[in-house]
Amino acid sequence: MTTFEALYVPAPLRDAVSDQAWLTAMLEAERALAKVTGAEAADDVFRPGGYDITRLCEEGRADASPVVPLARALRERAPAAHDPATSQDILDTAAMLISRNARLLVLADLDGAAAGAAALAETHRSTVMAGRTLLQQARPTTFGLRAAGWLVALLEARGRLAVARLPAQLGGPVGTLDPDLTSRFAAELGLEEPVVPWHSDRGPVAELAGALDAVGAACGKVGLDVVLLAQSEVGEVSEAEGGGSSSMPHKQNPAAAILARACARLVHANASLLTGSRHELDRAAGAWQAEWPALSAALGFAGGAAAAARRSLEGLQVHPECMAENASGLGGDVGAAEALVDRALTRYREQP
Amino acid sequence: MTTFEALYVPAPLRDAVSDQAWLTAMLEAERALAKVTGAEAADDVFRPGGYDITRLCEEGRADASPVVPLARALRERAPAAHDPATSQDILDTAAMLISRNARLLVLADLDGAAAGAAALAETHRSTVMAGRTLLQQARPTTFGLRAAGWLVALLEARGRLAVARLPAQLGGPVGTLDPDLTSRFAAELGLEEPVVPWHSDRGPVAELAGALDAVGAACGKVGLDVVLLAQSEVGEVSEAEGGGSSSMPHKQNPAAAILARACARLVHANASLLTGSRHELDRAAGAWQAEWPALSAALGFAGGAAAAARRSLEGLQVHPECMAENASGLGGDVGAAEALVDRALTRYREQP
Amino acid sequence: MTTFEALYVPAPLRDAVSDQAWLTAMLEAERALAKVTGAEAADDVFRPGGYDITRLCEEGRADASPVVPLARALRERAPAAHDPATSQDILDTAAMLISRNARLLVLADLDGAAAGAAALAETHRSTVMAGRTLLQQARPTTFGLRAAGWLVALLEARGRLAVARLPAQLGGPVGTLDPDLTSRFAAELGLEEPVVPWHSDRGPVAELAGALDAVGAACGKVGLDVVLLAQSEVGEVSEAEGGGSSSMPHKQNPAAAILARACARLVHANASLLTGSRHELDRAAGAWQAEWPALSAALGFAGGAAAAARRSLEGLQVHPECMAENASGLGGDVGAAEALVDRALTRYREQP
Amino acid sequence: MTTFEALYVPAPLRDAVSDQAWLTAMLEAERALAKVTGAEAADDVFRPGGYDITRLCEEGRADASPVVPLARALRERAPAAHDPATSQDILDTAAMLISRNARLLVLADLDGAAAGAAALAETHRSTVMAGRTLLQQARPTTFGLRAAGWLVALLEARGRLAVARLPAQLGGPVGTLDPDLTSRFAAELGLEEPVVPWHSDRGPVAELAGALDAVGAACGKVGLDVVLLAQSEVGEVSEAEGGGSSSMPHKQNPAAAILARACARLVHANASLLTGSRHELDRAAGAWQAEWPALSAALGFAGGAAAAARRSLEGLQVHPECMAENASGLGGDVGAAEALVDRALTRYREQP
Repeated sequence: MTTFEALYVPAPLRDAVSDQAWLTAMLEAERALAKVTGAEAADDVFRPGGYDITRLCEEGRADASPVVPLARALRERAPAAHDPATSQDILDTAAMLISRNARLLVLADLDGAAAGAAALAETHRSTVMAGRTLLQQARPTTFGLRAAGWLVALLEARGRLAVARLPAQLGGPVGTLDPDLTSRFAAELGLEEPVVPWHSDRGPVAELAGALDAVGAACGKVGLDVVLLAQSEVGEVSEAEGGGSSSMPHKQNPAAAILARACARLVHANASLLTGSRHELDRAAGAWQAEWPALSAALGFAGGAAAAARRSLEGLQVHPECMAENASGLGGDVGAAEALVDRALTRYREQP
Repeated sequence: MTTFEALYVPAPLRDAVSDQAWLTAMLEAERALAKVTGAEAADDVFRPGGYDITRLCEEGRADASPVVPLARALRERAPAAHDPATSQDILDTAAMLISRNARLLVLADLDGAAAGAAALAETHRSTVMAGRTLLQQARPTTFGLRAAGWLVALLEARGRLAVARLPAQLGGPVGTLDPDLTSRFAAELGLEEPVVPWHSDRGPVAELAGALDAVGAACGKVGLDVVLLAQSEVGEVSEAEGGGSSSMPHKQNPAAAILARACARLVHANASLLTGSRHELDRAAGAWQAEWPALSAALGFAGGAAAAARRSLEGLQVHPECMAENASGLGGDVGAAEALVDRALTRYREQP
Repeated sequence: MTTFEALYVPAPLRDAVSDQAWLTAMLEAERALAKVTGAEAADDVFRPGGYDITRLCEEGRADASPVVPLARALRERAPAAHDPATSQDILDTAAMLISRNARLLVLADLDGAAAGAAALAETHRSTVMAGRTLLQQARPTTFGLRAAGWLVALLEARGRLAVARLPAQLGGPVGTLDPDLTSRFAAELGLEEPVVPWHSDRGPVAELAGALDAVGAACGKVGLDVVLLAQSEVGEVSEAEGGGSSSMPHKQNPAAAILARACARLVHANASLLTGSRHELDRAAGAWQAEWPALSAALGFAGGAAAAARRSLEGLQVHPECMAENASGLGGDVGAAEALVDRALTRYREQP
Repeated sequence: MTTFEALYVPAPLRDAVSDQAWLTAMLEAERALAKVTGAEAADDVFRPGGYDITRLCEEGRADASPVVPLARALRERAPAAHDPATSQDILDTAAMLISRNARLLVLADLDGAAAGAAALAETHRSTVMAGRTLLQQARPTTFGLRAAGWLVALLEARGRLAVARLPAQLGGPVGTLDPDLTSRFAAELGLEEPVVPWHSDRGPVAELAGALDAVGAACGKVGLDVVLLAQSEVGEVSEAEGGGSSSMPHKQNPAAAILARACARLVHANASLLTGSRHELDRAAGAWQAEWPALSAALGFAGGAAAAARRSLEGLQVHPECMAENASGLGGDVGAAEALVDRALTRYREQP
C-alpha cells in the first residue's frame, strides 16, 4: 500500500522494514524470551518460514494485533512459549529490533551524504557564489560554505539518530514483571534496559521519530538547495545522472534532489503520528495500534531521503564559472567563509 | 512497507490501492489518451501484464517518476503513445482512477456502518443511559441518541467523500494543451473536466484528503465511544467477536473499535501531507512526488476505519440493564432524546 | 502569545478573533438564549463592558472553560440567564459567530486577491514566459495562464470557505434539549440549525478548518510562485512596495509573498488540530478545550494569507521583456494558453 | 489572537513569550552586538520603552520582519548599531533568549509535576488497583506504579528540554561573518556558539520543539489517565479543586487534567510546524517567517501543560478503597510493582 516504494527506498531497507522482517523480529523476541525463561522449544519454532504474516494479520483483527494468533501458534509447538509476556512486549521489542537494523542502513547512507557534502565543502572552499536570502542575491559567499551548512545539519541529524534509545520491552500484561527478567531479556537481544516498562510511555518511539524527522529535514534541505541551484536560470549545479522527462527527453531534472524532498515530507507526516501521542493507562486502545505502519514508513522514507541526498551530492556537478558570473555584481569579499568551512570540516573529522 | 496492512485494510481495498492497481490505472490513462489522439496501438500494449512496476520504479528514480520509463516502454510498442501528455498527466489521472475505485469500497463500508448506527438508534431510541461529559456522568440520555450522533457524523463524512471532485488531468508539459482534448479524455474515462490543468493546484487532492480525514474522524469517534462504553467498569456495550489477549484469553477487547481508532490516526497523518501543500510554478519539485504513497495510505486506512466501525457497530451487543444501573442516580428524564433520534433517522432515510 | 500578530494579520481581523470578540460573541449567544427562553434580563447584562475576559479565563481554569464563571456572573444579574444551556452551547455558538464575522473579512481579501489574479490573467493573456516544471524551463506558456492558475485555485478555496456550515449549538448538558428551542435560537442568531447537537461531532469545525487550509494553500501558492519569479536570476516579477533588508537597503524582497507563505504554514498547523479529531461521548475532555486558540489562529492566519496574496498581486510589477528573454530558447508556441485563460476568466465572472 | 491564553498559560510564562518580551530580547541582542563590535550607543537606546512593537510589526510588513524598522530606529539613535548583523541574527538570537527564559518556567512546573508524581508513587507504592489495558481490567498493579510511569516520562521529557541547545546567531547577511565575533557575542549573552551560522539549518529549533512536544506528551498522558481514573464509574481519583459545570454545579470535573490534555494538543500542532522544515539556501522566504508565533505557542502551551499536570498531581485525591473494590476480582498479586516503583524513585533522586 506504500505506492511506488521501490522509487523511494533502497531495496535492503525495504526488506528491513517489511512484514517479513517484522515477523522475524517478533520471533527473535519470542526466542530470546524462551531462552531467558528457560521455556523448552526447538530452534525451528522461531523460524519465520513456519508462519504466514498476512494470515496472522487477518486473524489478528479479532484482537487488534498479529501477536495473539502468533502466540497461539507458538504455544501449539512449545507450550511454555510467550510466557509471561504480553503481546505488546513482543511487538515493542520487535519494533526496536526493526529500528536497530533499519537505522544501520539509514546511517550508512547518511554517512555517504555527509562524505559527499564534506568533499564539496573542501573542494569548493573558495569557490565564490552569490549568497541568496529570501531567494534574492545578497552578498558573496562560497559554495564550500553552502556545502558546509549541509554537512553540519547532516552531522547533527546523524548524531540524534545514532543516540536514540532502543529499549527492550518486557512488562507482562500490566507492566509488573520482575525487572531482572527484563534485564536479561534486554541483554540477550542487545537492547537497552528500561527503568520501568514503557507500554504507555512512548518517549522512546517519539525520540526515534524526532531523529528520523531531523534526518528527513537535513536531506530535504540538501534537495531543496540543489533544486534551486540547478534551476535553468541559475545553472550553478547539476546532478550527474540527470533526470529526463517523458515529453522532453533533452531536459535534465535533479531527480535525486526531488526524491529527497518528497521523502522528507513523507517522513514528517509519519513522524508526526509518533510524536506527541498519549496512551491510555497501562496499554493504549488505538494510539499504540497505529504506530507500526508509521514507524516503518518513517524509517523507510528517512532512508530514502538519505540515499537520495547521497546520490545527489556524490555526483553533483558544480559549475564555478556560472557561480562567478551570477555573483559578478556582488564584489568578491566572502568574509570568513573559508574559515567557517574549516570549522565544519573539523567537526566532521572529529565526530565520534 | 505498510506494516501489517492486512490487519487494518480489507483485501479488496488493499488491491485497489496496490502498485499493480496504479500500474493498471496508468495504462488505462494511456489507453484513453491513445484513443482520443488517434494514436495507433494494439490493445495489449495497455495490459499491465507486460510491465513490471517494481522495475519501473527503480528505473524511475533517475526521473523521480515511474512514468518516464513506462512511457519509454510504451513507445517501443506504439510510437505515438503517451503524446502529447506529460508524465504528471498520466499519474494524476491514474490517482483519480484509483481514488474512484477505492472510494466505492470505502463508501460501501461506510454505508454498512451507517446502517449499523441507524439500527442501533432505532432499537435503542428509548434505552436510558447516562450522558457523559468530560467523562463524568451528567444527565440521562438514550443510547439511541448516542448512536444517532454517530449516524449523523457518518452521513456527513459520507456526503463529503461522495462529492469530492475527481478531475482528469491532461495539460502536457506546461499545462497548455487544447482543453477540447482534455474534455474528450475526461469523457472517455468518466472523470470530471477541470477548468484549467491542476498540475500545481492541488485543490482536488486536498478536498479528497479532507473528506477521507472526515471519514476517519467519524469512524474513529465510533471507536472511541465503543472503547469507553465497553470499559470493565462501564460494561454498557461489548463487541460481538470480542478480542482476546495473548496472555489473558478470558479478556474481551473491543478490537474493531480499537482498529477504527488506529486507522483514524493513520488517515489523519497521511491526509495532513495532502492538504495545505503548495506546488512550484507549473509542476512541483518534491511536493507532488510525495503524494502517491500518502494518497494510497489515506484511502486504505479510511476504508480500514470504515470497515472496522462497521464491524463494531453491526455486531455491537448493548446491555440496557447495565445502562440503567449506571444511570440510576440521574433520574429518568431524557428530554427530547427520542425526537432527536427521529430527526437523525429522517436525515438517514432522506439522504441522496 | 501570537508573536508579531500585527505583522501577519490585518487589524480588523485581529479584532474579530480577539478575546474581546469572543466575549462579545458569548454574550450575544447568551442574549439570544435569554430571548428565546423568555428569561428576563436587562439589555446591559449582555454588554461586554461589564466583564473582564482575562479574569474569566483565570477563574475558568477550575472548570477548564471561561463560560462557567461567565454564567455565574450572568446569573447574579439575571437569575434565569444561561438556562437551559451548557457551557459548550455558548462556546460553540460563539465560535460560529466569530467564524462568521472573521470569514467576511477573509473573503473580502480573497476577493481582492482573485481580482488581482484576474487582472493579471487578462492583461498578460498573451505575454510569453517560460513554463517551468521541477524548476527547469520546459516549454513556453503565458504569464496570463500562470495567473489564471492562481485565480482558479483562489476561487475554489473561496467556494469552500463560503459554503462551510456554521450551525448554532444548543443541546444542554448532554444534548437532549428540545430541537424547537435550538431552531429558534439558531434563527435568532442567523446560524444554521443542526440535525442533532454536535457537541462531540466536530464535522462543522473540521469542514471550516479544511476550507481555511485551502485558502492558505491557494494564497501560499501565489506567494511561492511570486518568490520564485522574483528571484534575482529570473527577474520576471517584483512587488510594488519591495521589501528592504536591515543590512542591504538596496535589496528588494517580495515581502508580501513571503508573508503569504508564512501564513499558509501557520494555517495548516492550526487546521491540522481541528481536522480529524475525535471527541469522547457527549462532550470531550481535552480535545474540545484545545479548539479555541487553534480556530482563532486558523481564521487569523488565513486572513493574513489572503491579505498578503492580495497585496502581492494588486501591486505586482510584471516584466514581459525579462520573460521573453528567459523564454527565448523555447520557441514561441504557447499552445492553448490563451484559450485556457479565457476559461478561467469565464469561471471568475460566473462565480456566484 | 491566542484565544483564552489566560485559561491555559500561567501569567509569568505569558509575559515571557509576549511581544514585549520579544522586543526586549531583540534589543538585548542588539545591545550585546553593540558591545562586542564597540559601537557607541547610550544604554537607553536598548530600552524597550522607546519602541512600539505593534507599530514595528505593521511597518515590518514591507520587509516581512519587524527587525528592519527596529534597526532603522536604532540607527537613528546610534549610527553604528545593528552592524554587521542581518535581521535574522537578531531574531534568531532573540528566539533563543525567549526560549531560555521560558524554559526556566516550564522546567519549574515540570519539576513540580514530577515531585507530585514521585510523592504519589511513594505513598501508593503498594496501593492495589486494577491494571487496565485497552481500557479493560487486566491484572492488578499498584497506583504507585502508575504514578511511577508518569514520573519516568516526565523526567525523560525534562531531560530532553533541559539539554536542548540554545545557540546564538550571528552570521551577517549570508552567514560569512568572522566566527570570533560570533563567539564573543554568544559569550556576552550566555548562549551556545554554533559551528557555522544556522540561518537555514533549523536543527536547533526542531530539537527544542521536539522537546516541548515531549513535555506536552508526558503531561497530556497524566491528564488522560487522571480523566480516565476520575470517571464516575471508576472513581479512583479526583482533583482537589474539582471543576464545576455551568449547568450542573454538583458535578466535579478533573479540570486541570483536561487542560493538560488540551495544551498537549496545542503544543503538538505548533511543534509540527517547527520540526521537519526545510529552508531555502542562505535564508528562507517563508518557512522562517512562520516560526515566531509557533515557537511562542509551543513554549506557552508546554508550560500550560506542565502547570496543569502539576496542579492535577499536587492536589490529586486518591481513593484506595475504590481501587481495591474495582480490582477485587483480579486477585492481589501485583508482581514486581513495588520494585519498579523503587527503580523509578531512584532514577528521580539521581537525576542531574
